[in-house]
Amino acid sequence: MSEKYAVIGKSVPKIDGRVKVTGQAKYTGDLKFPNMLVGKILTSPHAHARILSIDTSQAEKLPGVKAVITHRDVPALKYGISPARWDENIFCIDRVRFVGDKVAAVAAIDEETVYKALKLIKVEYEVLPAVFDPVAAMQEGAPQIHDEYPRNINTEIHQNFGDVEKAFAAAHHVRTDQFTGQRTYQSPIEPHSAISIWEDGKLTVYTSTQSPHYFQYYIAREFGLKMGDVRVVKPFVGGGFGGKLEPTGLEFAGAVLSRLTGRPVKMFYDRHEMFAHNRGRHRQIMKITTGVDKDGKILGVHADFIMDGGAYTSLGIATAYYAGAMLPLTYEFENYKFDMYRVYTNLPACGAQRGHGAPQPRYAFECHLDMLAEDLGMDPLELRLRNARRPDTVTPNEFKINSCELKACIEKVREISGWDKKKGKLPHGRGIGIAVGSFVSGAGYPIYRTNLPHSAAMIKVHEDGSAATLYTGAVDIGQGTDTVLCQMAAEAMGYTYEHMKIVAADTETTPHDFGAYSSRQTLMSGAAVKQAGEEVKRQILETAAAMLDIDVSTLDCREGVVFCQSNPEIQKTFAEVAREFFVRKGPLVGRGSYAPPKLGGKFKGAAVGTSPAYSFAAQVSEVAIDEETGEIDVKAVWDVHDCGTVINPALLHAQVHGALFMGMGEAVWEEVVFDEQGRIKNANLSEYRLPTALDMPEITSQLVESCEPDAPWGVKEVGEGATIPTMGCYSNAIYDAMGVRVYSLPLSYEKVWRALKEKREKEAGGG
Amino acid sequence: MSEKYAVIGKSVPKIDGRVKVTGQAKYTGDLKFPNMLVGKILTSPHAHARILSIDTSQAEKLPGVKAVITHRDVPALKYGISPARWDENIFCIDRVRFVGDKVAAVAAIDEETVYKALKLIKVEYEVLPAVFDPVAAMQEGAPQIHDEYPRNINTEIHQNFGDVEKAFAAAHHVRTDQFTGQRTYQSPIEPHSAISIWEDGKLTVYTSTQSPHYFQYYIAREFGLKMGDVRVVKPFVGGGFGGKLEPTGLEFAGAVLSRLTGRPVKMFYDRHEMFAHNRGRHRQIMKITTGVDKDGKILGVHADFIMDGGAYTSLGIATAYYAGAMLPLTYEFENYKFDMYRVYTNLPACGAQRGHGAPQPRYAFECHLDMLAEDLGMDPLELRLRNARRPDTVTPNEFKINSCELKACIEKVREISGWDKKKGKLPHGRGIGIAVGSFVSGAGYPIYRTNLPHSAAMIKVHEDGSAATLYTGAVDIGQGTDTVLCQMAAEAMGYTYEHMKIVAADTETTPHDFGAYSSRQTLMSGAAVKQAGEEVKRQILETAAAMLDIDVSTLDCREGVVFCQSNPEIQKTFAEVAREFFVRKGPLVGRGSYAPPKLGGKFKGAAVGTSPAYSFAAQVSEVAIDEETGEIDVKAVWDVHDCGTVINPALLHAQVHGALFMGMGEAVWEEVVFDEQGRIKNANLSEYRLPTALDMPEITSQLVESCEPDAPWGVKEVGEGATIPTMGCYSNAIYDAMGVRVYSLPLSYEKVWRALKEKREKEAGGG
Repeated sequence: MSEKYAVIGKSVPKIDGRVKVTGQAKYTGDLKFPNMLVGKILTSPHAHARILSIDTSQAEKLPGVKAVITHRDVPALKYGISPARWDENIFCIDRVRFVGDKVAAVAAIDEETVYKALKLIKVEYEVLPAVFDPVAAMQEGAPQIHDEYPRNINTEIHQNFGDVEKAFAAAHHVRTDQFTGQRTYQSPIEPHSAISIWEDGKLTVYTSTQSPHYFQYYIAREFGLKMGDVRVVKPFVGGGFGGKLEPTGLEFAGAVLSRLTGRPVKMFYDRHEMFAHNRGRHRQIMKITTGVDKDGKILGVHADFIMDGGAYTSLGIATAYYAGAMLPLTYEFENYKFDMYRVYTNLPACGAQRGHGAPQPRYAFECHLDMLAEDLGMDPLELRLRNARRPDTVTPNEFKINSCELKACIEKVREISGWDKKKGKLPHGRGIGIAVGSFVSGAGYPIYRTNLPHSAAMIKVHEDGSAATLYTGAVDIGQGTDTVLCQMAAEAMGYTYEHMKIVAADTETTPHDFGAYSSRQTLMSGAAVKQAGEEVKRQILETAAAMLDIDVSTLDCREGVVFCQSNPEIQKTFAEVAREFFVRKGPLVGRGSYAPPKLGGKFKGAAVGTSPAYSFAAQVSEVAIDEETGEIDVKAVWDVHDCGTVINPALLHAQVHGALFMGMGEAVWEEVVFDEQGRIKNANLSEYRLPTALDMPEITSQLVESCEPDAPWGVKEVGEGATIPTMGCYSNAIYDAMGVRVYSLPLSYEKVWRALKEKREKEAGGG
Repeated sequence: MSEKYAVIGKSVPKIDGRVKVTGQAKYTGDLKFPNMLVGKILTSPHAHARILSIDTSQAEKLPGVKAVITHRDVPALKYGISPARWDENIFCIDRVRFVGDKVAAVAAIDEETVYKALKLIKVEYEVLPAVFDPVAAMQEGAPQIHDEYPRNINTEIHQNFGDVEKAFAAAHHVRTDQFTGQRTYQSPIEPHSAISIWEDGKLTVYTSTQSPHYFQYYIAREFGLKMGDVRVVKPFVGGGFGGKLEPTGLEFAGAVLSRLTGRPVKMFYDRHEMFAHNRGRHRQIMKITTGVDKDGKILGVHADFIMDGGAYTSLGIATAYYAGAMLPLTYEFENYKFDMYRVYTNLPACGAQRGHGAPQPRYAFECHLDMLAEDLGMDPLELRLRNARRPDTVTPNEFKINSCELKACIEKVREISGWDKKKGKLPHGRGIGIAVGSFVSGAGYPIYRTNLPHSAAMIKVHEDGSAATLYTGAVDIGQGTDTVLCQMAAEAMGYTYEHMKIVAADTETTPHDFGAYSSRQTLMSGAAVKQAGEEVKRQILETAAAMLDIDVSTLDCREGVVFCQSNPEIQKTFAEVAREFFVRKGPLVGRGSYAPPKLGGKFKGAAVGTSPAYSFAAQVSEVAIDEETGEIDVKAVWDVHDCGTVINPALLHAQVHGALFMGMGEAVWEEVVFDEQGRIKNANLSEYRLPTALDMPEITSQLVESCEPDAPWGVKEVGEGATIPTMGCYSNAIYDAMGVRVYSLPLSYEKVWRALKEKREKEAGGG
């Protein structure tokens, strides 16, 4: 018992590993209910059009069709996940706003009939002019997408901390660069599906969700039901990455179809539809101006951004704020200005994707810093070290940073990547780049229902102590939360991980939890689980003290053994004490909950980006560029992460690997491409190019552990943070290799090739 | 709020009514798992034989067969539900003991392959002499079925309370009669099935069970697993009636097949197999001697019984004790002798069936009492009234009776049936009869693990108070427990039934409960639920007091409203208080448990029949007999029940109707019939004649409420008690109609016709 912790800090096997690899795990699409119907949504073929008429009569007559619904059959109450901007209807009433907008839905006895029926619905449209670019959409005279929002501005942010103009005036050097991101799609392996069962005025929804409790709230609100009359059950989920945090049309349409038919209705999006409905990453146009002193110390930053929001708000208000709020986390400077326009266009709505608003701005900023370093004749790693944030500091936008080992991360990545021997010294065609990043460990404020605990947990010990069940509303979407929370429960209880069971998540049986987003669960759900486990432990120790006739303060419990700290030979097993507790007092239950302390500033939007804790990462990548083709061959990536105390090292490094995989895809290949009518050209996984395992570079993932003061055992985020530096890191490595910079994502082979061609032509012209 | 109770005492709709009638409810047989195999058991075609060899090689070679197992592949540890007599093996090792005994099992990809494979298993038998009658089986030289039990005596009971011989000597009149019962089968609508999933050394079993926690214990014991590593989940159950209390071969064989194949295995009994494996009612041969004084006061009773146990013990030891223990519940007398032999035969094992050991002895006793009354020239109802048990008395076998309204029940049934105008006064061919009964409200001691609480419960309130979930291991097998327990929870919490949810039952997520047997759940599970509900209420009132800044003792809560008792205008809703509790303290959880007080005497077997409470019933039936055919037409039945406080009148009367239905079937039609080789001749529901709805007489079910002192709200049993008087009641009515008595069950048309013929011949001969 020399180790500090008995259960956490160990790479125990995933609690659901076996059922997943053997195919036992049931996802929503695997579920079947008696008399279940299949439902599908009819969507708009036009990017912008007025609905003149909808004729469902032919579809209704098709044998096997049980219900056809349009806006006439559903509540007109607008919804959306952001209470500040509810702008969606279950079905469009008078106007469609993107190719894929929801117009009607059918429930029928099988898929074949559903698809036939969809074709029989006659919708008469008057096509309207559409706009697909946010800058164009902001011009006077552009097509108006929502009447309430002049110039199509969905969200407008103007924040000013300190005095940027004064800082620039005093600077040794000021430069401005502009970069453009791209629209990407989360590509979860499991497409979204939902089964709705409405009976007796109560609604049960099995759905692929990142947050059953959010879904419950929004569904109940839309239909005027009490929350207790809406049950949301999460089966296994095959990936979310931000796309499964808000109810889609599937839950709303499915609920109405079930109510009308009295039968369960399964709705699903195929892969093609997922691209239009999964609310992928916003494309941002990012202009950044930075002023530095002669030593490279950052004096002020102005971030001036525009983002393409698509046709609806989704989570985009938060994305817009995050885009600016996260930039100052990594570097210490006092003057910061952030301007943002999130603009409606006639494209599918954008929402949250791993890293939320942060990765594209971080890409822009990290490229920009390398350019500044070059201007100053300074090593870009050195520039970062000089500015890197230290612990116990406050950002210009008033976020309190507690633990922070960013400097140590940079030093370590310098060492393990061989930076000093490589930077500027590799042969032509080969280069190395650095970038850093930071991310929240949970949002300081939830999107809605602000005064509730963010997480709660309950643990029940089996009456003979041979198992304990953790009830949590936290959501494992593949990242390993179930495993991590069971480790935490066992640690707090003094119990064994191997005997933990978990129920997660079902709004009817598991306590409230906001779910999987903003990398919140290890800290927030973990804090609730720890408290519940400690309540179990207290009861175990009290009972053991009574059994042993000994002072309770002398006892402790670890890995299923209660022992006297001064005389470890005095022992009882957890199991026998649990059984005795049950005999004396009935079920042994522990409860816990977590609400973050008061955080952040008082300015408008201060809530977005506040977190009880921030993690930090420094990343270096080495690339080889084919001068003939522009092909980017990533040779190696080194990631050093400060993510607080590590609960499960294997899962942590797997998260880093996954984040780098996603970052690599977004950096080099991924982009949702539209044609001139606003139709997605590559809405499938053969033309939308995700990296595969074969594309992965050699990855070295290392840690600088810190201990976050107000977090359970000192934990912080890891799930999203490692995605953030990757794009800038690659761009900087490409520049180091070839002396060319690509100003837009993805950094495709073609763009690199064109940049090389341009450089050659310029050099030839200049020579 | 003038009514005493807000939620209990009302006929609220069944909580699972809707899902059942719409076909949404999933029973074990409805469940499917990926890669699931189908398993079946090969059984013995001989009633008694030595196994010489088993050759599974041909079966193993059949494509699609994944495993074939025999006794060589399974633990040799004997099992059984009665720890006093473990005499079964998963598969027979050297000998088969009845037609249907388990020899081998196959798992294959589908049913067709399984059945083909079963035929390919070659078993060589040496047929041994068999014995099918318990009296014959006790003779010297009878075939020995289990080597350890000479004369095939499985259980022998000799109890002597007071001095029966002395009582008989002092009696005005003594008579002896002998009656014989029959073997019946419970006929649940859902045949037994089980799905076993063994992985990672842990076993999950979905099964149609009356007690997940019993199953968990016995399965864990058999395989040497920790209980926490065995999870038993109860889907919806379509009837049990005693037959689903013990694990069958399905769970054991399925577990091994799953372990060997690494795949889920579904096992099932078809209807034919159910007859051999469901452990139906014991056939009893019952000699009763009673001595009375000249006023009809019972002075002593001697019950001398033999029962056919079939090939194994099952629950039969308890049955044997119950048969004698229940007789003195209804009448006050001091001298009682009980002798019983439960005997092994080469027939399927018998176990528990609604009423357990009590209905057949009660039939015998109530017929016998009518004959005594006739001997004395006394109205049989009057005889019963004179002897009827009063409250706060103790039986000769030392059971403490608290509440008891048997006299009032008899008086009431006399009144509503028009007894005084009918008895002996109806036209020839028409008659009226009376019988009474009594039953336990849960067993004072469980079958195993004696020092545990018998029931435990947990309630979690949804964070906004709009729902509350009850977690209970109690088992609804159709009788309505889920509904009744939710009513009790709501009453105790001061909450609304409509917003209750229930999780029941799953050993991993619901607290320990012994399950559905001995009519225990309303009292015992109910007591645990009440305590859990009261813990919730206490926390609600404390929080409300803090919110209102008022003394907590002034507050109460009822149907979702917290109010000041002295000033009901001071109010908060339960929901808003619950939400506030969640914000302040996290999950609102209540816990409860129940263990009965010390009960009963110290003599051997005293544990069987002790209960915290006993219910009582008086029944009158009116019949019309067709003299030509012997056909019995039951015109009407009046049942008056003292079952304590009623939680749900509609469900209570439904239980009475169901019990009378079952009693009627057993009285007139039902009997499992064997051929000379010990094979069941009528193992199907067309030849084994259950009554149908069309056969049901007009039923009047009324109550005399009592209040049981140590039970939650004063509840007692109703599920089994009403089955008990029916057979004797019919027999007495037939006698009143025709002057003939049938001494064996069922009171078939043929037997009545033969008795009438015999009577006519005797009268003709005598005349």
